Amino acid sequence: MIQVAIAGLGTVGAEVFRILGMHPEFKITAVSARNKSKNRGLDMDGVVWVDNPTDLSTRSDVDVVVELMGGESDPTYSLVKTALQNKKHVVTANKSLLAHHGAELFQLAKENHVGLYYEAAVAGGIPIVKLLGEGLVANKISSISGVLNGTCNYILTTMERTGRGFDDVLAEAQTLGYAEADPTLDIDGGDTAHKLSILSALAFGGSPDLKSVSVTGIRNITANDIADATQNGQVIKLLATAHKDNDGRIVQNVAPCRLPTTSPFSQLDGVLNGVLIEGDLVGQIFISGRGAGAQPTASAVVADLMDIALFRERVGLL
Amino acid sequence: MIQVAIAGLGTVGAEVFRILGMHPEFKITAVSARNKSKNRGLDMDGVVWVDNPTDLSTRSDVDVVVELMGGESDPTYSLVKTALQNKKHVVTANKSLLAHHGAELFQLAKENHVGLYYEAAVAGGIPIVKLLGEGLVANKISSISGVLNGTCNYILTTMERTGRGFDDVLAEAQTLGYAEADPTLDIDGGDTAHKLSILSALAFGGSPDLKSVSVTGIRNITANDIADATQNGQVIKLLATAHKDNDGRIVQNVAPCRLPTTSPFSQLDGVLNGVLIEGDLVGQIFISGRGAGAQPTASAVVADLMDIALFRERVGLL
Repeated sequence: MIQVAIAGLGTVGAEVFRILGMHPEFKITAVSARNKSKNRGLDMDGVVWVDNPTDLSTRSDVDVVVELMGGESDPTYSLVKTALQNKKHVVTANKSLLAHHGAELFQLAKENHVGLYYEAAVAGGIPIVKLLGEGLVANKISSISGVLNGTCNYILTTMERTGRGFDDVLAEAQTLGYAEADPTLDIDGGDTAHKLSILSALAFGGSPDLKSVSVTGIRNITANDIADATQNGQVIKLLATAHKDNDGRIVQNVAPCRLPTTSPFSQLDGVLNGVLIEGDLVGQIFISGRGAGAQPTASAVVADLMDIALFRERVGLL
Repeated sequence: MIQVAIAGLGTVGAEVFRILGMHPEFKITAVSARNKSKNRGLDMDGVVWVDNPTDLSTRSDVDVVVELMGGESDPTYSLVKTALQNKKHVVTANKSLLAHHGAELFQLAKENHVGLYYEAAVAGGIPIVKLLGEGLVANKISSISGVLNGTCNYILTTMERTGRGFDDVLAEAQTLGYAEADPTLDIDGGDTAHKLSILSALAFGGSPDLKSVSVTGIRNITANDIADATQNGQVIKLLATAHKDNDGRIVQNVAPCRLPTTSPFSQLDGVLNGVLIEGDLVGQIFISGRGAGAQPTASAVVADLMDIALFRERVGLL
């Protein structure tokens, strides 16, 4: 039995809580969230509530801390750091944390012989971390590219379909809940850059290097740009790309790109994400699916937890 | 260090041999193939040659047997069976073996506390086994469908592009090496059925159930059929599909299907494979890539070997 603590009980945390209830190999022992009195429809019987999330990292009844609070600073940063120092595995969906502190945190995990799992941090329900880190591990990766932000893709595809302008469609996306009240991190490309830096580190080795990512968002894309692309048989996508140049330097870019309609990225409507990987043995692999949302993200979090469980089961069989 | 035996040194076996030479955590200790005198350009120094592949399964200097001989009968069947009985992990690319004897062999692996790995058996370089078995493990899968045979897809896309007839294109595919001298297993859907039965077992539980697959191949597809589909904005693909019906019975079909050009399968040209998975948490995930060939298949075989190595490394860290 694996004892799990969950920090953060928003829509993803609540979904993870619900799914783990169907898997007897896991027991949720402790949780922490901002609002204790909120009714989340979860059965909290036998689950300890702690007000300070960092307290989860020192409990003897916790093997794994699931971090779903978000943000790259405290209390999230301290929670993850102390959890690893206390030899707890950490499962996180936090791209911003890993993009900013990945080098330090992965080193801490290694030193403490525990895992820092982050399938949910990139491309939501698409198991891209497992695909790249395990499935294609025999390959030298020459390039990776992706449509990694559902908000931007929703805005661009809606502009394309309706002919409407950026501000108009953004406002609607905010009303519908597809864009945040402060949409900066999405539409200016920051979120995509976080994810790209994590994928680059996985594909090419080393730690996430967020500072070297060249970033342009979609704020200046006009209805005219979209119309012109359509007339030329093209589609505009916010594309993240990374490759190694001839000197072995990793080049990372996030920018709106015109793609031919035959590109696999051009088929990605609305909030879908897609990733194209080029490896020396496999050639091109393309994968697409829902890049965000409570259920796809929870799917990735639980897959990481299952990895820990599967490892324990295999060790037990030795 | 993991000691590896390779049975079968065709194009895939030779490629696996070459790749493992770059990975010091593996040592190839023994091999077996039909023709000892053939020059494969491999450095066989320090590698034992055995004439009877089954002898690989009892050697004390072998931890993992990589089976790349093909076929579901002896000597392949005996080799895999005795290897598992002798507590060797087995890595295989053999869809036919697993489709026919999967139930018995997976049970043998379980009883002997070793792994039977088969990433290379379905969809070549696409890590579909890891994706379905690990990446999407938190999901209840409701359906899976795929274009799983490169030969059929090459024939169909060539017929579509050129307007030529089936027999004509098949003959050319045979000349080019895209189709076997005896193409029956490919064009009549048997190979696709093997792969589907393996994916179904992975998606829905249980063992591969080849007998229940309803199979129609592409032999009777005419140039007229293709032209008519094109006129109607459709593409013909040999599609494998599996879902659970209302009684919990798994329904498996292989048949040529007319798909709209907007289907992700319709974009698959030539020898590409593609798989569409529908899960309760993630919704639809689509993945495509090269489904055959020495390098993509070797990529999958080596990924399985790396899984074994990674497990050992993690156990060492405990």
